[in-house]
Amino acid sequence: MFESAEIGHAIDKETYDREVPALREALLEAQYDLQHQKRSAVIVLINGIEGAGKGETVKLLNEWMDPRLIEVRTFDQQTDEELAHPPAWRYWRQLPAKGRMGVFFGNWYSQMLQGRVHGVFKDAVLDQAINGAERLEKMLCDDGAVIFKFWFHLSKKQMKDRLKALKDDPLHSWRISPLDWQQSETYDRFVRFGERAIRRTSRDYAPWHIVEGVDPHYRSLTVGKILLEGLQVALNAPKTKPRSNVPPLPENHDGLSLLDCLDMTLHLEKDDYQEQLITEQARLSGLMRDKRMRRHALITVFEGNDAAGKGGSIRRVAAALDPRQYNIVPIAAPSEDERAQPYLWRFWRHIPARGKFTIFDRSWYGRVLVERVEEFCTQADWMRAYGEINDFEEQLSAAGVIVVKFWLAIDKDTQLERFQEREEIPFKRFKITEEDWRNREKWDLYRNAVCDMVDRTSTEISPWTLVEANDKRWARVKVLRTINDALEAAFKKSDKKRKK
Amino acid sequence: MFESAEIGHAIDKETYDREVPALREALLEAQYDLQHQKRSAVIVLINGIEGAGKGETVKLLNEWMDPRLIEVRTFDQQTDEELAHPPAWRYWRQLPAKGRMGVFFGNWYSQMLQGRVHGVFKDAVLDQAINGAERLEKMLCDDGAVIFKFWFHLSKKQMKDRLKALKDDPLHSWRISPLDWQQSETYDRFVRFGERAIRRTSRDYAPWHIVEGVDPHYRSLTVGKILLEGLQVALNAPKTKPRSNVPPLPENHDGLSLLDCLDMTLHLEKDDYQEQLITEQARLSGLMRDKRMRRHALITVFEGNDAAGKGGSIRRVAAALDPRQYNIVPIAAPSEDERAQPYLWRFWRHIPARGKFTIFDRSWYGRVLVERVEEFCTQADWMRAYGEINDFEEQLSAAGVIVVKFWLAIDKDTQLERFQEREEIPFKRFKITEEDWRNREKWDLYRNAVCDMVDRTSTEISPWTLVEANDKRWARVKVLRTINDALEAAFKKSDKKRKK
Repeated sequence: MFESAEIGHAIDKETYDREVPALREALLEAQYDLQHQKRSAVIVLINGIEGAGKGETVKLLNEWMDPRLIEVRTFDQQTDEELAHPPAWRYWRQLPAKGRMGVFFGNWYSQMLQGRVHGVFKDAVLDQAINGAERLEKMLCDDGAVIFKFWFHLSKKQMKDRLKALKDDPLHSWRISPLDWQQSETYDRFVRFGERAIRRTSRDYAPWHIVEGVDPHYRSLTVGKILLEGLQVALNAPKTKPRSNVPPLPENHDGLSLLDCLDMTLHLEKDDYQEQLITEQARLSGLMRDKRMRRHALITVFEGNDAAGKGGSIRRVAAALDPRQYNIVPIAAPSEDERAQPYLWRFWRHIPARGKFTIFDRSWYGRVLVERVEEFCTQADWMRAYGEINDFEEQLSAAGVIVVKFWLAIDKDTQLERFQEREEIPFKRFKITEEDWRNREKWDLYRNAVCDMVDRTSTEISPWTLVEANDKRWARVKVLRTINDALEAAFKKSDKKRKK
Repeated sequence: MFESAEIGHAIDKETYDREVPALREALLEAQYDLQHQKRSAVIVLINGIEGAGKGETVKLLNEWMDPRLIEVRTFDQQTDEELAHPPAWRYWRQLPAKGRMGVFFGNWYSQMLQGRVHGVFKDAVLDQAINGAERLEKMLCDDGAVIFKFWFHLSKKQMKDRLKALKDDPLHSWRISPLDWQQSETYDRFVRFGERAIRRTSRDYAPWHIVEGVDPHYRSLTVGKILLEGLQVALNAPKTKPRSNVPPLPENHDGLSLLDCLDMTLHLEKDDYQEQLITEQARLSGLMRDKRMRRHALITVFEGNDAAGKGGSIRRVAAALDPRQYNIVPIAAPSEDERAQPYLWRFWRHIPARGKFTIFDRSWYGRVLVERVEEFCTQADWMRAYGEINDFEEQLSAAGVIVVKFWLAIDKDTQLERFQEREEIPFKRFKITEEDWRNREKWDLYRNAVCDMVDRTSTEISPWTLVEANDKRWARVKVLRTINDALEAAFKKSDKKRKK
């Protein structure tokens, strides 16, 4: 895989000097077009052998292009805030907005290779990380990002010569850290695992580019031309995505849906409710104070028909807790900053740190509910979202985050009653808008979307709970009990793991 | 000051039960109106004696009001990211957006009182912190924020009884940390320094409310009513601010301005330029790698006439450095999320951590330049901004951040030449817009604004450097040299301090 990058590529100064001006000009122009279009974020990953010109290349890009539109991100030691969140969180919070370029110097590949080279984990874990990288990049590209992955290469001999030369040069010696030197010993491992990662993550939408690092002229021109070409392709891509040939989801041929199977007569008498509510609230309060909660975080997702009682349920959950422990995030239309990012970005922002609890009032499932029904996104977008969401929740789960998801279901008559009630009571008038009435007309479309959502995203690691919510008391107790059961199950599971 | 809060205030259950429903309804309505108006952020500061019901009150607010519009923020130990930034950074990044309510449980007052009570610093430093709090609150209120400051009080005897009762109650004992108990010993100090802070920060726009904490009914109703009243006043405030009676800034009566005194013929020959540029770049590179840089951060601000060469100067600075060290932040119109915050918020976001360097391409000075000239803000707003900016920079400077500010000045003829050149060269066409031509027509207004800005914000801790920029070479070298001199001076100063 690295053969072509050890044969001594070189470009003479004359050629270089002749070609650079036009290249720079074209790169600048592409960069401004990109900013103007605001359709794509550009992500440049810088990896490879120490001394192969990674730093020099990043510096050069900042000289050749407009550095005001470039963000260079380094990921060294994780900060304590980063350590309290799922591993991908640190990358999400540094993603460049559409129209801008992020140069990730140190990135998910460096992190996984460092870990594997130094024996922190074995191949199986490396492969998981590789797979995670692949899915992240796929998702970013589907969202319009342009990803360039550069591996700067040197043969072992070239590296040793290069490190020696740098060490002797007083102007450059600051660059060589003990860790870099150490890498000279572990060159073989680094190259072997690097190849594994490259092999399995080189994809049409985000291929790797292996660049021989010895000759600066060759290296610089190569990188510049690859960037330019990639940018131009992205800039000239048709504005509207081609109509996807994804077949529509099949309807249930007998007309029977999951939601029809709920027993909507379930209810609680007032006394039973009071008693059970207090019991479950005390249980939740105890569980959240359990020492084992320090190893976890909790997320609850509330989705449901309009007027199904999401707000009331959320308040009963919150009432059990110390407000310092939880955070309620209401999801409405995305803001400008949020629209300039992949759609999961706005949720990554609110992922709780270990020990904390975030309540999402509506959530990332908007993509396959309102955005699908109202056609705010294409069918390809929302069809893809099922997988992206499962990935997302798997990452949360792997980091110890417990995800509990509710669909609060009411029937059409109950909704009508509640709408009318809301219009009559003054301090509830904010809860009802024209839009609610319009959504109501699309009842069947929403029902189909909900059933598809549950079928495709109710997983072992994060199942959906359908809540019969015609009776508010029943719904509130069921919500609390489900959260408590999930916490207990997670605690038990992690106890078992620790015993092993 | 606490006398009225030690006399045993109490409200009987019957009265409480009778009054609460209407209060809750009114609070909810106020909250929704607030969200709807999106004019004010609400900040509730919770302070006072341990065991006086702080936690219970925060919990109650979340029960009574819509918790989806409330963010409870706790500030305990500073994270390592927070420690690498100026002290106020942690509060700025948690400010609620307009239309929302932030409950700051643990805040600037707790931080300063903890420090003083435990003897980390003396009165003089406490007074500085108090003064800082006052200025922060004034700025927030001028921006439309509504701040409620609650001090929950108990007499010493009441506190001891209360802590004992909580300790004996198995359901509550988790709340009592060793630190809380310790506070029983330091009650006197806490009350004494608390009084000092309250006395000096109780202002018409953000008064303190001292609430006796013994009786929950009294405490809860009192807080609820204070909140409601304050919210209603804010909601009913006139939409447009009253025309300020601030007199306009005087013009120079002889027509001579600071900018007229620059020698615009200053220039460098090509050879001198090459040599000096390389020298200064090497110097900058060395200074940024100096160990003493770890105790500092660097900010440079670039303002200037359109086409004065800000971009070119920034690139010459960046070219000297490892791109991992710096971050360039171009400032254009604020985004939606940024508009929902005080105007300095978007700059606080980009304040560099220790050891890092942020280059602002245009800056917070937009307030007193373009926003003043184009009348995007009121005269009162931009007049106030001079002081707010000086405060801001003082905070940066106190935290070791070196702030270097440039005004790149060209004359009117030079600007015309450059505009015409930009229109002719294809890859420069992005640099010139209709707006640039319109701004040019306001040359004199901008000149006055610049002179006022320099007169009012060129301070010892952060002076302005006027750069004669008709000759780009001269300007670039002067910019680099000024940054280098500032770094050296700061290093020397902090060496001296450490020797003491």
